[in-house]
Amino acid sequence: NIWQMNYHEAAIFLQEGEDNDKFDSHPRDRGSLPAYLLSHSLWFYSLDLFASVLLLSLAAAERPAVYIFKDLNAGIHATVELFALGVLGISIVLQLKWRGWRNFSKHTRSMIKCGAWLVMVAEAITVIIRNSSHFRATRALRPIFLLDNRYLGGVRRFMRQLLQSVPPVLEIMAILMLVLTVFTTLGYYLFSPYQDDPYFTTLGQSFVSLFVLLTTANFPDVMMPAYARNRCSAAFFILYLAVTLYCIMNFLMAIVFVVFSGIEKEKFRKLLLHKRHACQLAFRLLVSRSCPHAISYTRFTGLLKFYKPKANARQFYQVYIACGLQWRPTDPEPAWYCHLPAPGPAVGAAIRKMVTSPVWEAFVDLVICSNGVELLIVTFFASAGGGSLPVEAHVSWFQLIFIVFYSCEVLLKLLGLGVTEYFSCGWNIFDITVTLLSIAGVIAEAFYRSFHYIVILRLLRLLRLFRIRRRYREVFETMLLLAPRVMSACVVIILIYYFFAIIGMEMFSPYNLENCCVNSTVEQYYKADNSSAYQSYYYLNNFDNIFMAGVTLFELTVVNNWFIIMEGYAFVCGDGSRVFFMLFYMVMMVVMSVVLAFIIEAFTFRMQYNQTVNKNRSKPKSEVTRVLLSLTPDEVEFVYRDALDTQSVLQYAHDRYGETRLVAPGGDDDVARTIKKRSGSVVSNLLEWWKSESADGHEEDEIVTND
Amino acid sequence: NIWQMNYHEAAIFLQEGEDNDKFDSHPRDRGSLPAYLLSHSLWFYSLDLFASVLLLSLAAAERPAVYIFKDLNAGIHATVELFALGVLGISIVLQLKWRGWRNFSKHTRSMIKCGAWLVMVAEAITVIIRNSSHFRATRALRPIFLLDNRYLGGVRRFMRQLLQSVPPVLEIMAILMLVLTVFTTLGYYLFSPYQDDPYFTTLGQSFVSLFVLLTTANFPDVMMPAYARNRCSAAFFILYLAVTLYCIMNFLMAIVFVVFSGIEKEKFRKLLLHKRHACQLAFRLLVSRSCPHAISYTRFTGLLKFYKPKANARQFYQVYIACGLQWRPTDPEPAWYCHLPAPGPAVGAAIRKMVTSPVWEAFVDLVICSNGVELLIVTFFASAGGGSLPVEAHVSWFQLIFIVFYSCEVLLKLLGLGVTEYFSCGWNIFDITVTLLSIAGVIAEAFYRSFHYIVILRLLRLLRLFRIRRRYREVFETMLLLAPRVMSACVVIILIYYFFAIIGMEMFSPYNLENCCVNSTVEQYYKADNSSAYQSYYYLNNFDNIFMAGVTLFELTVVNNWFIIMEGYAFVCGDGSRVFFMLFYMVMMVVMSVVLAFIIEAFTFRMQYNQTVNKNRSKPKSEVTRVLLSLTPDEVEFVYRDALDTQSVLQYAHDRYGETRLVAPGGDDDVARTIKKRSGSVVSNLLEWWKSESADGHEEDEIVTND
Ligand code: NA
Ligand code: NA
Repeated sequence: NIWQMNYHEAAIFLQEGEDNDKFDSHPRDRGSLPAYLLSHSLWFYSLDLFASVLLLSLAAAERPAVYIFKDLNAGIHATVELFALGVLGISIVLQLKWRGWRNFSKHTRSMIKCGAWLVMVAEAITVIIRNSSHFRATRALRPIFLLDNRYLGGVRRFMRQLLQSVPPVLEIMAILMLVLTVFTTLGYYLFSPYQDDPYFTTLGQSFVSLFVLLTTANFPDVMMPAYARNRCSAAFFILYLAVTLYCIMNFLMAIVFVVFSGIEKEKFRKLLLHKRHACQLAFRLLVSRSCPHAISYTRFTGLLKFYKPKANARQFYQVYIACGLQWRPTDPEPAWYCHLPAPGPAVGAAIRKMVTSPVWEAFVDLVICSNGVELLIVTFFASAGGGSLPVEAHVSWFQLIFIVFYSCEVLLKLLGLGVTEYFSCGWNIFDITVTLLSIAGVIAEAFYRSFHYIVILRLLRLLRLFRIRRRYREVFETMLLLAPRVMSACVVIILIYYFFAIIGMEMFSPYNLENCCVNSTVEQYYKADNSSAYQSYYYLNNFDNIFMAGVTLFELTVVNNWFIIMEGYAFVCGDGSRVFFMLFYMVMMVVMSVVLAFIIEAFTFRMQYNQTVNKNRSKPKSEVTRVLLSLTPDEVEFVYRDALDTQSVLQYAHDRYGETRLVAPGGDDDVARTIKKRSGSVVSNLLEWWKSESADGHEEDEIVTND
Repeated sequence: NIWQMNYHEAAIFLQEGEDNDKFDSHPRDRGSLPAYLLSHSLWFYSLDLFASVLLLSLAAAERPAVYIFKDLNAGIHATVELFALGVLGISIVLQLKWRGWRNFSKHTRSMIKCGAWLVMVAEAITVIIRNSSHFRATRALRPIFLLDNRYLGGVRRFMRQLLQSVPPVLEIMAILMLVLTVFTTLGYYLFSPYQDDPYFTTLGQSFVSLFVLLTTANFPDVMMPAYARNRCSAAFFILYLAVTLYCIMNFLMAIVFVVFSGIEKEKFRKLLLHKRHACQLAFRLLVSRSCPHAISYTRFTGLLKFYKPKANARQFYQVYIACGLQWRPTDPEPAWYCHLPAPGPAVGAAIRKMVTSPVWEAFVDLVICSNGVELLIVTFFASAGGGSLPVEAHVSWFQLIFIVFYSCEVLLKLLGLGVTEYFSCGWNIFDITVTLLSIAGVIAEAFYRSFHYIVILRLLRLLRLFRIRRRYREVFETMLLLAPRVMSACVVIILIYYFFAIIGMEMFSPYNLENCCVNSTVEQYYKADNSSAYQSYYYLNNFDNIFMAGVTLFELTVVNNWFIIMEGYAFVCGDGSRVFFMLFYMVMMVVMSVVLAFIIEAFTFRMQYNQTVNKNRSKPKSEVTRVLLSLTPDEVEFVYRDALDTQSVLQYAHDRYGETRLVAPGGDDDVARTIKKRSGSVVSNLLEWWKSESADGHEEDEIVTND
């Protein structure tokens, strides 16, 4: 059936529009469709994800391995690696099949993936044959496979924004390097004549000292020898920090912010255009010759069978979410206790009224507060009493009373609101989780004393106090809104860590830092004798396995005292190793700047949104925010091509409900992208219309929008 | 003459509008006018400034004094203090006189100033009578007098924005403290059982360790003992830093940014309204009954006699700058060499053409580059050669050639452009300064060898390379635009330093840190024996005089290793002294956040401005940027009250030059504040009109705007 094929292809177009895939990744012909469908199926995505994660986690078993895998044969992990690479190879072959070689070779990401795959297979086979690992820095490229997974679209987007921020950052860094060079030379001229100043003995040493000073990590130590000789030399260091840290670094931050905001706006524009393009391509496959400007209900349900095979009446509306509408039902279901016998509904309603009253909320907050204060006081007295373990705080009567109260509160709220409504609020989920954990903690304490610190979980309930102040609520809700993007940023950071950890392990794991750096400025940090009371244990900040390398890299990310680790490895492996640490610093600086820019941007947007909402309070239940996009006249025409029926729907909605626009052109060449939360009356009305239409048996009939 | 009085009062209104003074600081009646004029005269401002700075600088001479004032008699500096306070007293008395007691007592800033003045006079007299200093923490309030000076309006504005940012920051800090408390308790439960971990012995110690960790200053040291026992304990510290440093601190930054942007917009709005109010008050004093909607040329010049007594034809136009117009002359003066005899003009024009050509610019940049590279290479080889002083680099032939070239370039450019045009460009001023300094350096080197590091000045010329790239130019120009505001921020920071320095000197100067902190974690930093090769000299970070206190506070501002100084004083003066250091950290964190927010805000504005300009390239010579202000309908009516003639001017300008608007309402309730740089044709035309009008002897005639 030709319609079935059309439905299928239209569904693929819509999916590609939603995923922001390029349309050249479309299956080239009908013969390649099975390969396309296979490699776009849910279980294949999962298999690909599993293989990618497996490949990454092999770093724990390969030399230098974590403790439990210390004596693992090289052949075993190489075999597992070959298996994971085999799975990933299948996805490459399938992609090659539905894309065709010519299209595949144009797609840079796929080509890189393909090249890395070949190298890794060769190396894994070599390891199996020789039965021992060799120098394998190419393992650092394993994150490529994870990045290419379908589920990591957000991560790819963050990565792209990160890379786009790099050129302007490099330009500012060039200025920074120029200033650094000037001060390096000046510092060398000023301070090298003095033998007791270890920070400026050579030009290279001067550069390293001032590079570290840029991160403030050796301040004021780097200044002290000069300051001890002459108080005026403080001026050199203060001037340097004022110029680099407080001017140029702030400017760098500002530029990252400006560039990032620009990229965000551009991304909105491109996503809009891409989705429109997908809708247009799908629309053309669904119209019939008799009615070229509308698709019928039959066609629409036919499409949905492929686009959302398990779509029920609710998911049906997701097509509308795609064009900017979110909604909730106008009539909520009746509360569960309405179906109870005689006294039930009245009692239920009373409980509901109580648990939703602000007085009750305030009372609960007060109890939580006093619980926190009580716990602090008990701990403080235990600490002041000098007892090394505050065992007396274990299961006090106070704590039991509090936990009983919390349990009652959860139960009452569950009764009053019903399960569905209770769990629809994130705060309630948080409440019940913490309460259950607390109960488990008390039980554990009663049986096994060393579980005592689980009482701290009760303190977590203090987080509930965030609800009180509006600003806290805003901060918390913004955090939740940001969560998916922050997760993407975290994955990017972890992948960058993985890259540097592999390089670091290959380079530095043969060296031992214990008692190193004799007669250098960092000697005391690496002393490993039991004679001194306060050891610094810095020799533990090494690359001995993937997890210790991760901790070491986190310490480098925090930047404080990172130079001690760098100096250690510079001492045992030569000055060249400094490049690794300086490069990592610069990469993480850019990443962290982008994360901060992203948070500021998201927060500003959220605040503006709140202000708009507060302004529009007069229009109840309608929350509106806009992102103004600038489009060229050509693009505007492109966006509205074929969209005659959208206009009709808008007209209909306007006439009936006084709604002026869903998506409408703003000024001369602006498109206002309008995000709305409405009670869904327009949509539900359209649906009723469709229902009656399909009941009447009409097929090629009236208005349905493609968008 | 009644008109003279009106001119005078109108001028005062305009001045108050420009200075953003409240109108209740207006002289209450004609009798108080002399006092008002005296205290608003240029020399009185200067005297007030001198007395305030003198009062501040006394801290160098008072115990603990800098070295040269070590043996100064307490009576002497107290007498100087009394003199400075006397001058400041005069300004208070004058203000009291023209304001009247009732009005004065309502003005909080004046009342605080008055109270501080009384306390300080009393203390200074006590010092003279006892002839020795006592505990005088009230000296920390001296910045109040400087802040109140007329010239420090920008500083007051920054201070106000800083204070307005404090409440939201405090709210986020409350969250931070909550999280800190939770982790403090958890850390105490987890790590206090182990005797070899000095960071979590008591609940108080746990709090201090985690507060310092919040600033990353003791990382990873605070983690290492726990990490050495159990690798998993790294999770506690990573989680803590992730939540506090990378979440909450970033949110704090975002909130400061959002609040700061809001304040900036609100400030624009208020300034606009205030200036309008001032103009309206002045306008009413200048119109006559025969023509109530316009002021005549005579009235206008009469006003200018008081408002700008020394105004020549050029400063005349400053009234227009006040309402948003900037301009430059349409016809530049002929070049100086045009007046020379026969070959002069041709040669001059040729030189001008050469020095303004991009080829010449590129050539000069290349020479500067190679100069920098040459200097670096020479220094590098000198450093690699192991010579402790690179004397061979002194006055090499290379350097002489370069300096001769630079001198020639400056001379040629001076000849080609003429003195006025040459010095109108900031880059040229920079060029000639660096060249003159280099010449001075070479001469100094030739005579006195230890001046050798002045050669480094040549490297400064590399800064000229900023001109090449557009983004560098933007950064540099934005820096220059920000300079006045950054200066205000610097003054605020210095005043905060002064406050804390005085408190610190009073509290800590009796204590000596040498060899302190035995058996604590920071013992090694305070060792003052000559046996160890690398001393840390931390005992020099003290409060022994105002300048050393300043350096110590800068080290606390940079945050790195600040806890070592805090631990030192906590050891010798008791744990209470930590409050001083923690408070200073929190104050500086807010200040630095506001500075960063300010830079991002200014930079974003500048970038948007550039984008607007680039868009409007089609309209040559016209650069436009807008700040959209939301006004209520009442405010809009207020702004346009009495302003019929503004409309006429706009209409005239529109009819004649096609200019649509100078200041015009935007949408429903928006006022677009339009900043323009134009060739001044509108203004000059109006001026011609006025000139002809005054030549004709008309007096009460036509259109002049009050705004
Ligand atoms: Na630090
Ligand atoms: Na440090």
